[in-house]
Amino acid sequence: MVTQKNRDIRLKSRPVGLPTLDNFELVEGEIPHLGSGQILVRNLFMSVDPYMRGRMMDRKSYVPPFQIGEVLQGGAVGKVMVSNGNGEFAAGDYVLGMDGWREWFVSSGAGLQKVDPAIAPIQAYLGALGMPGLTAYAGLLRVGELKKTDRVFVSAASGAVGAVVCQIARNKGCEIVVGSAGTDEKCAYLTQELGCTAAINYRDCGDLGAALADAMPGGVDVYFDNVGGSHLTAALDNMNTFGRIVACGMIEIYNATEPPRGPYNLANIVGRSLTMRGFIVLNHLDMLPAFQRDMGEWIAAGKMTWRETILDGIERAPEALIGLFKGDNFGKMLVKLAEENGG
Amino acid sequence: MVTQKNRDIRLKSRPVGLPTLDNFELVEGEIPHLGSGQILVRNLFMSVDPYMRGRMMDRKSYVPPFQIGEVLQGGAVGKVMVSNGNGEFAAGDYVLGMDGWREWFVSSGAGLQKVDPAIAPIQAYLGALGMPGLTAYAGLLRVGELKKTDRVFVSAASGAVGAVVCQIARNKGCEIVVGSAGTDEKCAYLTQELGCTAAINYRDCGDLGAALADAMPGGVDVYFDNVGGSHLTAALDNMNTFGRIVACGMIEIYNATEPPRGPYNLANIVGRSLTMRGFIVLNHLDMLPAFQRDMGEWIAAGKMTWRETILDGIERAPEALIGLFKGDNFGKMLVKLAEENGG
Repeated sequence: MVTQKNRDIRLKSRPVGLPTLDNFELVEGEIPHLGSGQILVRNLFMSVDPYMRGRMMDRKSYVPPFQIGEVLQGGAVGKVMVSNGNGEFAAGDYVLGMDGWREWFVSSGAGLQKVDPAIAPIQAYLGALGMPGLTAYAGLLRVGELKKTDRVFVSAASGAVGAVVCQIARNKGCEIVVGSAGTDEKCAYLTQELGCTAAINYRDCGDLGAALADAMPGGVDVYFDNVGGSHLTAALDNMNTFGRIVACGMIEIYNATEPPRGPYNLANIVGRSLTMRGFIVLNHLDMLPAFQRDMGEWIAAGKMTWRETILDGIERAPEALIGLFKGDNFGKMLVKLAEENGG
Repeated sequence: MVTQKNRDIRLKSRPVGLPTLDNFELVEGEIPHLGSGQILVRNLFMSVDPYMRGRMMDRKSYVPPFQIGEVLQGGAVGKVMVSNGNGEFAAGDYVLGMDGWREWFVSSGAGLQKVDPAIAPIQAYLGALGMPGLTAYAGLLRVGELKKTDRVFVSAASGAVGAVVCQIARNKGCEIVVGSAGTDEKCAYLTQELGCTAAINYRDCGDLGAALADAMPGGVDVYFDNVGGSHLTAALDNMNTFGRIVACGMIEIYNATEPPRGPYNLANIVGRSLTMRGFIVLNHLDMLPAFQRDMGEWIAAGKMTWRETILDGIERAPEALIGLFKGDNFGKMLVKLAEENGG
């Protein structure tokens, strides 16, 4: 039945600055042998996420670095094509795990979870219903301690995480929710579809701090930071006393080739009694049940939407990852590896 | 009875960079008229504190800026020389308030509180038993959420706030408490008298981050930041996952004449799930009873000590303030304005 080859993407060299296609290698090989008790999975969608840039560097971090010559890793949803006596997974099941960057894999099932295609298209489990969505949920509600009286600013607000943050803030009753994005089209999406009260195109707004002050004359109580750098500086200048900065990511500096310049106004953290708190979603998995319940309700009520940018074929995965840092994605960036029937 | 003149210090011009004596003006005048129901107070000690540098700038902050030509303000302890029918204060009472930078003042008593010279020398109410002490207490225990298993790093550790932080950490059971200071003599004081397990002379240690790694091979769980700048950068490189940075002050950058460079490694806040939280002691006055109870017990048990650097005469107050930024003080910097008998 399985006569195809398997293809995967490996780290060929460590990038300096923005990754290039040369840093990746597409390798063709055999589909791995299916042992007793194992399942053979055909990946259908894989995720590319900004945090992967950090794993391409050889440094100590909360996840070990990718190794040169080895297959990359990342979120993926696939379909079980064959179950060789596995007690948990049967052929036809859809599974979510960290076995991206390859077309096929075999597994004992450890680390995989079933996902239900009846609730949402399966690729949503890599986006709004998956880690990016939980990142938004845990970050805003637990790390940011959101109150409905808060005025909220979200950077990269049309992205996989930011778009969910905007909608959760609105769904929780926040009246002022402002997002930033890099095109007028994305900004229109923020105000017209995500419920933002204003949007800032950071690429043509002039001084970002002044633009933020214009958009939020009452100041910022919660800043959900996906960007760092100039966005963080602008936010620090507009934070209200006792404001909270949810430090989710700093995509602006991930490709820095020299030590990035930190915000000149960090002392505002003292003078305005601010809290800046970083987090990793893996430490908040206990919120999954509440997240899934709330998201289910919001989706059913038409109060949660998302967009995807999908590139076709594993050979385009490096391009997809690189595109994240250029803002090529509109919403969640995905790579489609096969049709739903596994073909 | 009162035949003396009154002298006060006024802001003559706003400093650029480190304040100079030219920024201050000593003015001699009459002792103010004592109205009905008022008290006449002779200040005995006044405090100079790093936060005063911020108030010399014309900018919005948590306290309004000092105005050119007006008498400066700050903590002071004085003695009531005459009470003209004031129901609360009698001649001979010692009072603490914010009427520093002047030798005499009259008051209705509003904003003043009595202090007890039997518990400690009255100037201690400007230091370990006053705002600096409460800053240490609230910052470490509430803002920093100290646990006895924490490894603690304190910058400016021999200063008015830092010295109390070190001792509270030790008194609360922390086994690893490391402080930084600017002379070998101060470092010896940290380890020999304040209970620090190690001390770093930041002026001659070479790379501060490396020195901190040597002093705290298990990393830093709580960093009490009085300095900002290079100290904050060094701490960020040594923080443990879920570590907390208590942002109390950033004296290194208070005199910056151009926008200071923020830490290049601020992204560690994300990757290591750090919390950096600023605070102003005025928002934690509810902790005063607990603070006074604990400090009383620690002092009685010989587990709380402090040092003072005292300059004599109001004319030296500008020099005292400037000296803070050069590390001239060993412990709390004070200016003595009169003898305890008011003479």
